[in-house]
Amino acid sequence: MTAHRLNRCRAALDRRQPDLRVLMDGVHKPHNLSAILRTCDAVGVFQAHAVVPRGNLAIHRHCAAGAGQWVETVLHDEVTAAVRSLQSEGVRVYAAHWSPRAVDFRDVDYTAPTAVLMGAELWGVSDAGAAAADGHISVPMAGLVESLNVSVAAAVILFEAQRQRQAAGFYDQVRLDPERYRRTLFEWLHP
Amino acid sequence: MTAHRLNRCRAALDRRQPDLRVLMDGVHKPHNLSAILRTCDAVGVFQAHAVVPRGNLAIHRHCAAGAGQWVETVLHDEVTAAVRSLQSEGVRVYAAHWSPRAVDFRDVDYTAPTAVLMGAELWGVSDAGAAAADGHISVPMAGLVESLNVSVAAAVILFEAQRQRQAAGFYDQVRLDPERYRRTLFEWLHP
Ligand SMILES: C[S@@+](CC[C@H](N)C(=O)[O-])C[C@H]1O[C@@H](n2cnc3c(N)ncnc32)[C@H](O)[C@@H]1O
Ligand SMILES: C[S@@+](CC[C@H](N)C(=O)[O-])C[C@H]1O[C@@H](n2cnc3c(N)ncnc32)[C@H](O)[C@@H]1O
Repeated sequence: MTAHRLNRCRAALDRRQPDLRVLMDGVHKPHNLSAILRTCDAVGVFQAHAVVPRGNLAIHRHCAAGAGQWVETVLHDEVTAAVRSLQSEGVRVYAAHWSPRAVDFRDVDYTAPTAVLMGAELWGVSDAGAAAADGHISVPMAGLVESLNVSVAAAVILFEAQRQRQAAGFYDQVRLDPERYRRTLFEWLHP
Repeated sequence: MTAHRLNRCRAALDRRQPDLRVLMDGVHKPHNLSAILRTCDAVGVFQAHAVVPRGNLAIHRHCAAGAGQWVETVLHDEVTAAVRSLQSEGVRVYAAHWSPRAVDFRDVDYTAPTAVLMGAELWGVSDAGAAAADGHISVPMAGLVESLNVSVAAAVILFEAQRQRQAAGFYDQVRLDPERYRRTLFEWLHP
């Protein structure tokens, strides 16, 4: 273990945002999963959640071994229970989902404990996910295509959260509790 | 041709931004090309440029037939000439590229005529592309992974441009010249 590695791990943990989460509702293409986990790492998401379609566990394990090794990934069988469990921790869940109730993604306060729910590549956010969420958000589209790639939509929303949290000084103070900080540092240094 | 289709095409053309461009420097994975072209369409990029690695023309043609059918795509053999030709039109070219000269991507004025130069999946922006660009920009990374997926980085930058241009009222006025507007509307309605 070099001092350089220790310093890099510490610098990342110093900026982790335990109250900014992502919940993937059936996202299953490996390149999208990896791209989303890379973005999570970059904006300081500590924990990502995924509702895993039957039989896709292997893909999730594979991606988690890449960029995802720096982002704790919690797997769920079913979306309603996943949303409820986040809500029970005081996290507001926003579904990235075009619907009559959707508000512009920039109008949400991401400094509050927030999870962003992303839908699957083809069928989008499930009805159960949309119903359980606290609100819906959309990224404006000025063209003819109906939706963005899911990893692109996740990044645009998460970097808006990053912008708001940076302005609020959230990256200048340690936000992980000391026990989780120590445990994660140990795991990262002794994989 | 239905009135609905005509209205949708007009609404998109009304918001096209002829002076916001993307230049892809060797980007070659089909899912990244498609994701970038979808984002271009969504933020109103009228024309995208690509320096095409030898033999990848077929991939570009394929993607251009998807989301790219709404975004004019200009192919180039070589990056320096591509950058120079944009600059000769008065466009400032910013390479999305970590380097000592890179500034935060949010510190650029995207209401000026701008092109964003994106690097290839593995090797990034070429030396020639980095040298020819007017400036370098980077998206901040708070974690351990060294780079974002290229379509993710492009989207984060382009939606910052969209934000600035929306605040400046650029989507509330027609910005294409009448001749290009008419020609493109004709092509979209009679593919
Ligand atoms: C490719 S889209 C799914 C498209 C699907 N046909 C639908 O109508 O929902 C995959 C996911 O990306 C996210 N997404 C894509 N474009 C978005 C936008 N403009 N605003 C918010 N979320 C978006 C949503 O979470 C969506 O479920
Ligand atoms: C996967 S990256 C290339 C990584 C390559 N190993 C390098 O060091 O340049 C592909 C492209 O995405 C863009 N990119 C990725 N992360 C970025 C960031 N944080 N800031 C700016 N551009 C980024 C750049 O254009 C880069 O060339």
